[in-house]
Amino acid sequence: MIDKDDFRPITRSRRRATITNAKSETVKLRNGETAAASDPKARESFTKNLQAQLSQDSKRKCDLYDKMSCHKLQESMLSSASSFKNYRGILNWCVVMLVLSNARLFLENLLRYGILVDPIQVVSLFLKNPYSWPAACLVIVSNVFILLALYTERKLAMGLISEKAGLLIYIFNLTVVLCFPMIVVLKLPSITPVGGAFALGVYTILFLKLYSYKDVNRWCRERTQAKARSLSRSLSCPSSQSPSSGMQSHVSYPGNLSLRDIYYFVLAPTLCYELNFPRSESIRMGFLLRRLFEMLLLTQLLVGLTQQWMVPIIRSSMKPLQEMDYSRMTERLLRLAVPNHLLWLIFFYSFFHSSMNFVAELLRFGDREFYRDWWNSETITYFWQNWNIPVHKWCLRHFYKPLLRRGAGKLLSQSAVFFASAFFHEYLVSVPLRMFRLWAFMGMMAQLPLAWFVARFLRGNYGNAAVWLSLIIGQPIAVLMYVHDYYVTHYQDDPTVTEAL
Amino acid sequence: MIDKDDFRPITRSRRRATITNAKSETVKLRNGETAAASDPKARESFTKNLQAQLSQDSKRKCDLYDKMSCHKLQESMLSSASSFKNYRGILNWCVVMLVLSNARLFLENLLRYGILVDPIQVVSLFLKNPYSWPAACLVIVSNVFILLALYTERKLAMGLISEKAGLLIYIFNLTVVLCFPMIVVLKLPSITPVGGAFALGVYTILFLKLYSYKDVNRWCRERTQAKARSLSRSLSCPSSQSPSSGMQSHVSYPGNLSLRDIYYFVLAPTLCYELNFPRSESIRMGFLLRRLFEMLLLTQLLVGLTQQWMVPIIRSSMKPLQEMDYSRMTERLLRLAVPNHLLWLIFFYSFFHSSMNFVAELLRFGDREFYRDWWNSETITYFWQNWNIPVHKWCLRHFYKPLLRRGAGKLLSQSAVFFASAFFHEYLVSVPLRMFRLWAFMGMMAQLPLAWFVARFLRGNYGNAAVWLSLIIGQPIAVLMYVHDYYVTHYQDDPTVTEAL
Repeated sequence: MIDKDDFRPITRSRRRATITNAKSETVKLRNGETAAASDPKARESFTKNLQAQLSQDSKRKCDLYDKMSCHKLQESMLSSASSFKNYRGILNWCVVMLVLSNARLFLENLLRYGILVDPIQVVSLFLKNPYSWPAACLVIVSNVFILLALYTERKLAMGLISEKAGLLIYIFNLTVVLCFPMIVVLKLPSITPVGGAFALGVYTILFLKLYSYKDVNRWCRERTQAKARSLSRSLSCPSSQSPSSGMQSHVSYPGNLSLRDIYYFVLAPTLCYELNFPRSESIRMGFLLRRLFEMLLLTQLLVGLTQQWMVPIIRSSMKPLQEMDYSRMTERLLRLAVPNHLLWLIFFYSFFHSSMNFVAELLRFGDREFYRDWWNSETITYFWQNWNIPVHKWCLRHFYKPLLRRGAGKLLSQSAVFFASAFFHEYLVSVPLRMFRLWAFMGMMAQLPLAWFVARFLRGNYGNAAVWLSLIIGQPIAVLMYVHDYYVTHYQDDPTVTEAL
Repeated sequence: MIDKDDFRPITRSRRRATITNAKSETVKLRNGETAAASDPKARESFTKNLQAQLSQDSKRKCDLYDKMSCHKLQESMLSSASSFKNYRGILNWCVVMLVLSNARLFLENLLRYGILVDPIQVVSLFLKNPYSWPAACLVIVSNVFILLALYTERKLAMGLISEKAGLLIYIFNLTVVLCFPMIVVLKLPSITPVGGAFALGVYTILFLKLYSYKDVNRWCRERTQAKARSLSRSLSCPSSQSPSSGMQSHVSYPGNLSLRDIYYFVLAPTLCYELNFPRSESIRMGFLLRRLFEMLLLTQLLVGLTQQWMVPIIRSSMKPLQEMDYSRMTERLLRLAVPNHLLWLIFFYSFFHSSMNFVAELLRFGDREFYRDWWNSETITYFWQNWNIPVHKWCLRHFYKPLLRRGAGKLLSQSAVFFASAFFHEYLVSVPLRMFRLWAFMGMMAQLPLAWFVARFLRGNYGNAAVWLSLIIGQPIAVLMYVHDYYVTHYQDDPTVTEAL
């Protein structure tokens, strides 16, 4: 499109005339004449003459000469021979086009379906019977496992049970934390998929937290023993010194095994236990209320957009999916990708910024790094390391580094982390839907070859675009797969659903 | 969404610990201990001690302390309290979203309408009967007016007719240039709208060129007379000096009145006549072929996109337009805006860059400034001054500045330019369609209040976005208006068209 040829003016005198043009407006008026004055000195004296003359000449005459010549030797801006590079208007163009396209989609949707937003329907997603709250009951039961962990740690700290016995109790406790809600959700038909996913999410978080609790307390005991062995009370034993130094009460090992401490950890927006969390100075009411407002608003928006935008597209995708109509399936997939991606972005902000900051502010929890700049990721790996910092931190501290210490290779450890992540994704989706299809599992495992591909072949902005593309396209594929299977299983015989195209 | 509250750590010692953390990885390993050393000197000696000790301690022990503390006091990146400002990934996001949305539209269009591209149909737009080429005949006839202009100028130069008589001949000539094709197009039913628009476009360009030719030759005569009056042969008479100075033959006034000169001007990609155009050194074959390739490719693309994308939308807009269904009209308008805008962008590149550069290269015409950076315009005025430089230059030289010299105000002159432009827009659209609706005229005149509004209330990127918006939305409104009226007039009774929704 753009050209690199050299572009030379035809005469030297004319080129000089052009330069003179650019230098002074006065000379420009008569550039036909400057062509005559070909060496610099002559041109200088000529310019002086000209200026002296100008004051005598009539103004009208000047205008005349000005009018005579209106072209100069130059390249088009889009030719590469021109040095023009300013395209900042293009970003604005992108934004305007995106807003307009989506305004059109919004209007088209309203015209085709009318208003589908229905807040009452949301309640029915959580509850089948308003007098029975199975998911809430499950969450309340989880306190048992928290108390069991605390009880075990206290016995271990007092030396009443051996490390081995403690580990066995923990294995039992953590296995039950994962299996008990799963069995309840699978066996109890009164739990809705959304309620089940919520309860399982709570239990999964609890599992990760208790695992971290166990590890850190064990490290503390190991350190105490190491100190006791080395006999020298060197600077490396901060636990006994710290209480005297700070204005804040600094907790050391066995002192942390209190109800208050473990519940603070369970409620805090982190998965990694620490004896002394950094704390913020006070609760900023303005900040708190703004986060609360965002949470409420964005949750409403999520529900509204899902009902108005996602559900109709998913419904109309069922027929092509059943008939394996590939071109129509692709079209529905691309159509689903936009709302799905927007919902994911809103979810990200409302969960990782609004909600977590809200809880952290309420608990005066100091470390607010719940995400990093994943939007600039140029590799898939960078994205997974930065979009969910609590989980990433946990994986690094309690899974990846312990594996490395035990001699596992880097690639193996990384794959193991993705495998564990894939397991939990599948667990959180399959169990509430009561069907095992492995789409989420495969989606997570597919990240490994994808990460290799992007890191190997794409750099800079291309890598970033590839990450965005995998996010925008990857998710709706999994969503469509699950929803399709769910509909086929549950509503196969219902003609109003299968013919809703 | 983003918050400005202050965010203070709870203890001084802890803040210092955090700072030390950031400074050195070694100290970070034991930041529990640095809290004890509260003044700088003590910390320094402490660090030394620590480093000496580290060499003795086991590596495993270090890891242990590293694991213990994994949180630090910090704000979320999206909080305004954090100084994070890097969002370059967002531009890539915009591009990916635009590409995906349009891929979806493309696929949806193919699925709904099948392949509509039909090169044979294009020919029928120009010709009704392949043995009668009325538009081409009209273009050939235009040579008469060129020759009349040259003949008049020669008589004027020789003094055989007076200035007044010359002006009268020109008024007659230019009036016929505008009226003759109009009458032919209106009276001859064998001319198609596209063929008519092409012929009228050629005649309009010719009108502007001959007007410029007349003005410049008159200025030359006036200058010769002024010189003759002042008697002194000063430097301000370059016409007689120049031939001796350059390597190129420099043409002076009466010498330019040749067939070769006027036809060079008529074919050159400019509307402003000049006796000595800047010329490029040689024809670059690579450049020429690339421009030719672009012209052919983009013309095919224009035709294909119009048939496949524009026509179905326009057809389906007829019903809502007839029924005055406003929400559906808006939806169709927004749907039309995207392909219309893309077509306009492709047209801009293929006409103002490829075609004009092709012709210029062929004629060794040096001034390739056919457009400037209108994509960065922050005001409507800047856009109109920069997107079409040949017309802008002509308006400035032969319309705006002469008006100012005759004492008209700036605003009046500007409005007059817009009025003339509106007239020609209407002329080029209404006559070929054989219906006078004034939509194009009103569209151009609406630019004046719009320009005032944008310049008054919007700055920088907002101004730029407003210019884009007016381009993207403004054009399809006019297109829809004309097409609707055309369909209603011609195909009202044809049920296949009116029910094509």
